[in-house]
Amino acid sequence: MASLIHSKIKTKLNMSRRIRRTPYTKRVEECGVTDFTVVNHMLLPKGFQKSVEDDYWHLNEYVQLWDVSCQRQVQISGPDASLLVQKMTPRSLKNMETGKCFYIPMIDENAGMINDPVLLKLDDDMFWISIADSDILLWAKGIAVGLNLNVNIKEPDVYPLAVQGPKAEDLMASIFGEDIRKLKFFNFKVFDFLGTKQIIARSGYSNQDGFEIYFKCFEEYFDKNEMGEKIWDIIWKAGKEFNIAPGCPNLIDRIEAGLLSYGNDFTKDNNPLECNLEKYFKNESEHDYIGKKALKKIKINGVQQRLKGIMFEGNNCPPCSIPFPVYSKNKKIIGKVTSGIYSPKLKKNIGLSMILNEFCETGTEVIVHTPDSKLREGIVSSLPFKK
Amino acid sequence: MASLIHSKIKTKLNMSRRIRRTPYTKRVEECGVTDFTVVNHMLLPKGFQKSVEDDYWHLNEYVQLWDVSCQRQVQISGPDASLLVQKMTPRSLKNMETGKCFYIPMIDENAGMINDPVLLKLDDDMFWISIADSDILLWAKGIAVGLNLNVNIKEPDVYPLAVQGPKAEDLMASIFGEDIRKLKFFNFKVFDFLGTKQIIARSGYSNQDGFEIYFKCFEEYFDKNEMGEKIWDIIWKAGKEFNIAPGCPNLIDRIEAGLLSYGNDFTKDNNPLECNLEKYFKNESEHDYIGKKALKKIKINGVQQRLKGIMFEGNNCPPCSIPFPVYSKNKKIIGKVTSGIYSPKLKKNIGLSMILNEFCETGTEVIVHTPDSKLREGIVSSLPFKK
Repeated sequence: MASLIHSKIKTKLNMSRRIRRTPYTKRVEECGVTDFTVVNHMLLPKGFQKSVEDDYWHLNEYVQLWDVSCQRQVQISGPDASLLVQKMTPRSLKNMETGKCFYIPMIDENAGMINDPVLLKLDDDMFWISIADSDILLWAKGIAVGLNLNVNIKEPDVYPLAVQGPKAEDLMASIFGEDIRKLKFFNFKVFDFLGTKQIIARSGYSNQDGFEIYFKCFEEYFDKNEMGEKIWDIIWKAGKEFNIAPGCPNLIDRIEAGLLSYGNDFTKDNNPLECNLEKYFKNESEHDYIGKKALKKIKINGVQQRLKGIMFEGNNCPPCSIPFPVYSKNKKIIGKVTSGIYSPKLKKNIGLSMILNEFCETGTEVIVHTPDSKLREGIVSSLPFKK
Repeated sequence: MASLIHSKIKTKLNMSRRIRRTPYTKRVEECGVTDFTVVNHMLLPKGFQKSVEDDYWHLNEYVQLWDVSCQRQVQISGPDASLLVQKMTPRSLKNMETGKCFYIPMIDENAGMINDPVLLKLDDDMFWISIADSDILLWAKGIAVGLNLNVNIKEPDVYPLAVQGPKAEDLMASIFGEDIRKLKFFNFKVFDFLGTKQIIARSGYSNQDGFEIYFKCFEEYFDKNEMGEKIWDIIWKAGKEFNIAPGCPNLIDRIEAGLLSYGNDFTKDNNPLECNLEKYFKNESEHDYIGKKALKKIKINGVQQRLKGIMFEGNNCPPCSIPFPVYSKNKKIIGKVTSGIYSPKLKKNIGLSMILNEFCETGTEVIVHTPDSKLREGIVSSLPFKK
C-alpha cells in the first residue's frame, strides 16, 4: 500500500541556479508546463496541461516544439580530437563523414554503460557529443589529462530544440527553406538563421519524423535568452498552421519505439550487449577503445539478461517511478519493468525490462507486479513493439 | 513581470528510476516531504510542511534527521589510490591521517572548480570522496584509465544520513554510546550497528553541531530499503525526547554560515581563489595535481571577483531561482546573488554573490535587483554573516 501511496504523491521541484534554466524556460512556463525533470543539471519539461495520451496523439498527427537543451554538448576539438572520441566508444568511427550523426554506446573500463550519446562530426578535428544524463565532459577531460592529449574540451553555449511530428518537415521548410526536406535521417547541415549559422539535424527522441536545431548562442551578437526566445517565437508562429503544441519526449511513443533511456532502462551496471547494442560495434576489434578487454570477455562468456519489451494486461498502468518486478510463470523473479505505460495503439500496457536469458524469447509468458498490488499477465515482446 | 510570475510557479518533479530513490525515501514521504531537488541523479528532500523559517528555528534548537544519500561516495582503493586522490586536489594530503575528513576543492586542467567534496581517509590505500553535484566517479575513472593507475574506483552502497542540531550529540550518544561525544569535528570513527560496522563523522552541511552516518548496506545480510528504514526508525524513535523533526539543508542556516553550494554559488567557470578557498592549499607547490599550472598563473595574475556576502533591505526575499543582479551605487553591474533569503536573526535579506574586486570591501554599498522589480539597498559583508 505504501508504494501505491507514494506513486500518487506529486512533489514539487525546488528551483535553484544549480538546476539550470534554458533560453526557452520562460516560454515553456508561459506554455503552462506542469512537470519538469532534471537532466545534466538542467531543466527538461516533462508535461504540459494535456494528458500523456492526448500529447501522444498530437505528436502522431501534427508537430511539437521541445526544449531539449539538457542534451548538453561536449565539444572536443584539436589535433587529438578524433583519437580521443574513438577511445570513448566501441563503435568504429573510421568511415564517419563530416555532417553525420552517430549513436555511440559509451562504456567504462569494465564495459559498463556510462552514456549513450549522439556524436556529431563537425570537422575532422571537431566533434560534439550530445549526451544523455551523465557528466561526459569530466570523463573526456579525465582521459585527456591522463593521456596528455592535445585537445580542447568544453561545453559550448548550445541549446538543442527539437521539432518533432509528421508536420515537422513542412514547418521547418517554411522557416529554413525547401533544402531542409533533402536532409536525411541522422545527417546534419548548417542553415542560416538571423545572420547566424545554425546546425540542424534530422533526428530526435521520438518515433516520428523530426529535426533537432543545435541552437548556438553567439553572445557577441545577442543576449542568450533574447535569442532563444526569438527562435522559439519564430517556430511557434510558423507552426500555427500546422497545429503546433509544446511538447517533450512522450513516454508512450518512446516505449513503443523501444527507445532506451539512460538511467531508467539501463545504468552503469549494464553492458552494451545486455542493451542489444552489438549492431553498433561489429568491427570493434579493429580499433583501440576503453573497455575493449572487458567487452571482449563479455562477448565470449555471453550475458545473463537482455533488454526486452513486455506487453501486460490492463488498460492503464500506474506510474513507473519504482521498477515493477517481473516473474516467470513458476514465480521466479526474472526482471523488472523500468519504463511502463498504457499504449492506446496496442491497447495493452507496455514496458521495457531486462529479462533473464532463458525467458527472453518473444512470446514467453510472464507476470508483472504493479504497485497497485496487481499481478498482471504478460508476454515478452521484441522491440520496437508492433501492433 | 514574467520573471515574477515564474518564481511563483510550483512545478512538479516528474519521477522516474533515473532520479534515484534512497533507502529512506519512503520514510521521507511518510514525513510529508513537499519539495525535492535532484543531486547526483538522486532525490534530495528540500522541504516538509514547515516554512523554511520555522525549520530554521527548529534546527537551531533541537535536532533533525536529513536524508543526504545524494552525497554519493566515490570509493578509490588500491596501490595507486593515494596518488590518484592527491592528483585530484590542490590541497596537500601528506599529513592526512586515517579517520580524518578533509574538505578538498577539486579543479580541472584550467583550475575551474568541478566539485568541492569531503574526503574521508579509511586507510592508506582506501578513500571515500563524498561529492557535491557532479560525476566525480567519471572524472576519477578517466584519469585512472589515462594514467594506467592500479586502482579500483566505484560507487559503494553508502547512503549518508545527517543528524543535525544542538541536540544531535545527546541523541547520537543514546544510540551509539557515550564514546561518540568524544568525536571531534571532521573526524570519523567506526561504530557498531545491528551487527554491522558503520562510519560516523562529526560533520554536516549546517551551522550547527551534528553527525553524518555513512550508512553502508551490507546486502549479503539485509535488504537495502529494510535496513535503511530500520536505522531511520531507530533514530526517529530515540529522537522523540529531543523533539526530532525531518529536515534538509536549511537555506537560511546555510547562507548565514557562508556555506557554498556547488552549481549555485560557484561553477566550473569559477576558480578556487574566487571562492576564497586559498586557505586549503597553502602548500600546494609541493605536490603534483591537475590544474597546478593554471592555478599558479591565476595566483600570480590575481582574480577579478570574489565570493562575498550581501545584506540587503527587506523583510522578505523572493525565491532565488534566477540570480539577482547586483549593482554598484553608480549603476555598474558588479555581481549577482546566487543564493538569497531573509534571515530572521539578522533581520535583513542575505545572499551570496561573486563581486568584482574593486567593490569587494566589507561595507561597500550596493543595489540588489530582485525579481519583484524592486531595487534594494545593500552592503557587502564578510562571511559567515555576523549579527
